[in-house]
Amino acid sequence: MSCIVFEPLKKRVYCSEGITIAEVARNAGVSLLSSCGSQGTCGKCRVFIISGRVSPLTNEEREKLSAKDIERGCRLACLTRVYDEVTVEIPAKSLISSQRLQVAGNGRTVVLNPFVKRYDISLSPPDMHDQKSDQTALLEYLDSQYGLRDLNIDLSAQRQLPQILRANEWQAQIILRGREIIMAGQIGKRLLGLAVDLGTTKIAAYLADLETGEILAAKAVVNRQMAYGQDLMARLNHAMGNEAEALRQAAADDINRLVAELCAETGQSGKQVLEAVVVGNTAMHHLFLGLPVRQLALAPYIPAVSDSVDIKARDIGLGIAPGAYVHLLPNIAGFVGADHVAVLLATGIYNTEKTTIGIDIGTNTEISLAAHGRLLSTSCASGPAFEGAHIKYGMRAEGGAIEKVKITGSSVDIRTINNEPPIGICGSGILDAIAQLRKSGIIDRTGKMLSHPRIRGSEKGQEYVLVYAKESGSGNDITITETDISEILMAKAAIGAALNILLEETKLTWDEIDEVLIAGAFGSYIDVASAVEIGMFAAIPMGRFFQIGNAAGTGAKLALLSKEQRELSMVIARKSNYIELTNHPQYLRKFSRAIRLPA
Amino acid sequence: MSCIVFEPLKKRVYCSEGITIAEVARNAGVSLLSSCGSQGTCGKCRVFIISGRVSPLTNEEREKLSAKDIERGCRLACLTRVYDEVTVEIPAKSLISSQRLQVAGNGRTVVLNPFVKRYDISLSPPDMHDQKSDQTALLEYLDSQYGLRDLNIDLSAQRQLPQILRANEWQAQIILRGREIIMAGQIGKRLLGLAVDLGTTKIAAYLADLETGEILAAKAVVNRQMAYGQDLMARLNHAMGNEAEALRQAAADDINRLVAELCAETGQSGKQVLEAVVVGNTAMHHLFLGLPVRQLALAPYIPAVSDSVDIKARDIGLGIAPGAYVHLLPNIAGFVGADHVAVLLATGIYNTEKTTIGIDIGTNTEISLAAHGRLLSTSCASGPAFEGAHIKYGMRAEGGAIEKVKITGSSVDIRTINNEPPIGICGSGILDAIAQLRKSGIIDRTGKMLSHPRIRGSEKGQEYVLVYAKESGSGNDITITETDISEILMAKAAIGAALNILLEETKLTWDEIDEVLIAGAFGSYIDVASAVEIGMFAAIPMGRFFQIGNAAGTGAKLALLSKEQRELSMVIARKSNYIELTNHPQYLRKFSRAIRLPA
Repeated sequence: MSCIVFEPLKKRVYCSEGITIAEVARNAGVSLLSSCGSQGTCGKCRVFIISGRVSPLTNEEREKLSAKDIERGCRLACLTRVYDEVTVEIPAKSLISSQRLQVAGNGRTVVLNPFVKRYDISLSPPDMHDQKSDQTALLEYLDSQYGLRDLNIDLSAQRQLPQILRANEWQAQIILRGREIIMAGQIGKRLLGLAVDLGTTKIAAYLADLETGEILAAKAVVNRQMAYGQDLMARLNHAMGNEAEALRQAAADDINRLVAELCAETGQSGKQVLEAVVVGNTAMHHLFLGLPVRQLALAPYIPAVSDSVDIKARDIGLGIAPGAYVHLLPNIAGFVGADHVAVLLATGIYNTEKTTIGIDIGTNTEISLAAHGRLLSTSCASGPAFEGAHIKYGMRAEGGAIEKVKITGSSVDIRTINNEPPIGICGSGILDAIAQLRKSGIIDRTGKMLSHPRIRGSEKGQEYVLVYAKESGSGNDITITETDISEILMAKAAIGAALNILLEETKLTWDEIDEVLIAGAFGSYIDVASAVEIGMFAAIPMGRFFQIGNAAGTGAKLALLSKEQRELSMVIARKSNYIELTNHPQYLRKFSRAIRLPA
Repeated sequence: MSCIVFEPLKKRVYCSEGITIAEVARNAGVSLLSSCGSQGTCGKCRVFIISGRVSPLTNEEREKLSAKDIERGCRLACLTRVYDEVTVEIPAKSLISSQRLQVAGNGRTVVLNPFVKRYDISLSPPDMHDQKSDQTALLEYLDSQYGLRDLNIDLSAQRQLPQILRANEWQAQIILRGREIIMAGQIGKRLLGLAVDLGTTKIAAYLADLETGEILAAKAVVNRQMAYGQDLMARLNHAMGNEAEALRQAAADDINRLVAELCAETGQSGKQVLEAVVVGNTAMHHLFLGLPVRQLALAPYIPAVSDSVDIKARDIGLGIAPGAYVHLLPNIAGFVGADHVAVLLATGIYNTEKTTIGIDIGTNTEISLAAHGRLLSTSCASGPAFEGAHIKYGMRAEGGAIEKVKITGSSVDIRTINNEPPIGICGSGILDAIAQLRKSGIIDRTGKMLSHPRIRGSEKGQEYVLVYAKESGSGNDITITETDISEILMAKAAIGAALNILLEETKLTWDEIDEVLIAGAFGSYIDVASAVEIGMFAAIPMGRFFQIGNAAGTGAKLALLSKEQRELSMVIARKSNYIELTNHPQYLRKFSRAIRLPA
């Protein structure tokens, strides 16, 4: 008798001696790539032998594998026979696609290995001569069949087990999470997981099949906490009053609503959602858990908790499976939260050999810089101007918002969202407009308007008419004021100064940055050229910028579907070195330098 | 540098080399007995060296200690110096009384070692240069000061920590339960524990100071579930309908009420109750946890759970400390529950060298027999006659109940509870009456009434007038009918047959029984001589019977105050061999033989 332990799945399989790894894998439901039918010719079923005795290297393998790979223990599973207790590491690339996860954007693959797993059970019915309790019978079975010992069992599973067993002729399945049985259920139902990006404005949720990695549905709602203020500080103030519980409840309600809608859409039941992963900034994280926020809102901005958190969903009122846990990724600091850790996880910048900046632009902007094995993080208050607030004709990125602007002489070309008649201007449009105004020489480096037929006086300094009333959807002129420009310049200066401090800390210049990964909704819509034009980023080659979309959501999904990725998030958070800017000796100087437009 | 680990407290203390164990113990707050001031003359500070290097045995020790003790590693702490990492076992008898628990009745002592412990913490306030989260600061402190690592922290403690720290200049205490921080609190408050005997009729609760072992208050209430039926089967029927949640809630409400009253009486707060231990029969246990009972109520009578259970108090609606756990002792079988395990724990019969019977008489009677290292348990349905039900003038043991009867010729002497005028007869009175009727030759061995001036016909066969109307408190004659006698004979036959089967299984006779320990309320009130007279027990010397009161409550208290005792309860439950009587080939034959009164 031999035995193989497949890593990182931690799957232990007994087998007869001399059998190939490929055959054992097939029998155990681990599907390795192969296009030659295990003839040793396609070279796709690569695995690494970690320990144990296997058959010697064949000539075919010498041909297919590089010397470096061979040195690291690489073998072809279809040609390698086991004679012992062997530990085999399967690289994600050797698995068929349904058993790995493609990480959008950077081509990485991750092994599908969720935190919760199901086990089939089949017990002998008790009788007057064998009266052991249902739980004892279950635990004895799991020990004898799967070698599982020292398990805990959640009260909800204790309550479910007797009926489930008796209703199904003593066949059932149990769901194990680590060492805890969190559910006893009927055979055949899907195991669902939920990934949630708990944003200040929007809450996005993804319903996943934990066993295939498939995202069954995705949905977003406006965060109901908006009723307590659009920006975080307003909400923290409410929470410091006596509305913390109301804010907590609002977030829980929103997620419950999302679960209900996602399940309705896919014909699933919320009771089958066995694990949830939630990411959000530190304030949203604290409000969601009902943690106190006073010490977070006031200097020195101390989180109650920064490590990852695992709590029963029922303890915070989430209506998923009664025994399910919610996992929250770790926070880095008071203003660099679990959502940013999720971005770092999704982008993989924590261990790239490149010099990379990861940035999520919003009311609060989080930035990380990975260089020479170090990971620095910081955050700056960039204000709500990018979301259209504090801008005369500013609006959210909704239908009718001007999102693109091109100025040629006295003519202005605009593009609106959904091509509806223009009614206002959203963040990316404002960025474009300022870049174009500067490019056309209509404003100077301080944002002051020079002379132009479209410029006129207003109650807020001078303003430039972007769209005349007759072309607008609202019947009013749509203008950009000097005050608007000043708001944006302050925001970009905050970001620019933060970036410069990170560079200075690592003794790097902009030219040495290999990649700038721009995450988040706003970052996905902006014209990066305009952002460079106004000096938010330095003028490095445009090919180094990547707009990566909702990377926080992707990170949450990774942590939901891969145990290793989840564990990695703690490593990332601990490795990350947070740099506080509010009292940084260089910050104000750099801010004031960054506020002008480039020459 | 040397080090001592004190067992069973698991207290690790670092010390300088060559110092005496007594001195190290004193510094560590472990108070050993001594009446000679550590001069080596009183011989009271006995400890056992489990491992490690200590100074050689002195002549004083050779005088004070027996050869057998010396062989087992016994030393006097005041004369023994440590030179190494030494593990020392402290017998409970060597501790001063405030650090040990006297177990009522059997003279055993147990080391006070509760499951939850407090730790002082004193953190440095964070600032802009040290912005780590409160939880991280706490965990780093516990690691550096106490060597505590890999701790979990309950959400409630995460919520408490920030305010507690800031309100108390960064001084606080945390409560650790195993590896989980269950509370962050202010310095100086008592650590309370609750032991509950969840009886079918009555619920008794004890409020203990976990650090002194002192029972601060005790209280009992009538189980509110009585509204769903006086006997268990009626309640199980309700639960099998759709009233399981109502029954669960009733038990939780009763315990919450007891906590409130115990705390009010002692000026304590329920939020300081950090651990609860609950014992009850298997049905009460299941109803309390909301576990399904159908499989328990119907043959083959399978418990959902028999192992001990640890759940958050909040998960079953107990309003004690938010992070507190409730521990339920294990069940042995469907009709031998955690309350009987508690009796076994309290009496210590699981490891006595004597041959001992432990019996708890009630509607359901649980019996264990310990002999030759084996532990057998069984249970029999003895019906509600002992509690006054199904008896013409039967009543509960309340004021006015006849509890003692003596018949001399035609005169009857009675004693009532509280000496109130007689209104009925309770279990112990009925037992007495039947014993006296038989002794006086007024009834025959089958319980049939012969002729006597006090005997007369009635609608239920003949009856014997115990108290005439003119002497009764109710204005009616109080009689015992032949039907009453027959009820009692069936009950005592059930118990007698169960006892005989246990004896037969162990090939013992009554004469070989060293001790019969009678637990529970009814068992405490009966006249054992009468019980022998009617043949419930065999006529062995009366000195072998011990009425030990509420041993289930004592067992619950032990499991609350001693980690070792709690762990022992699992050993007891697993060691116990349950014998099912309902289908036992000998049971009916033995029952029919046991139903007659002794010759």
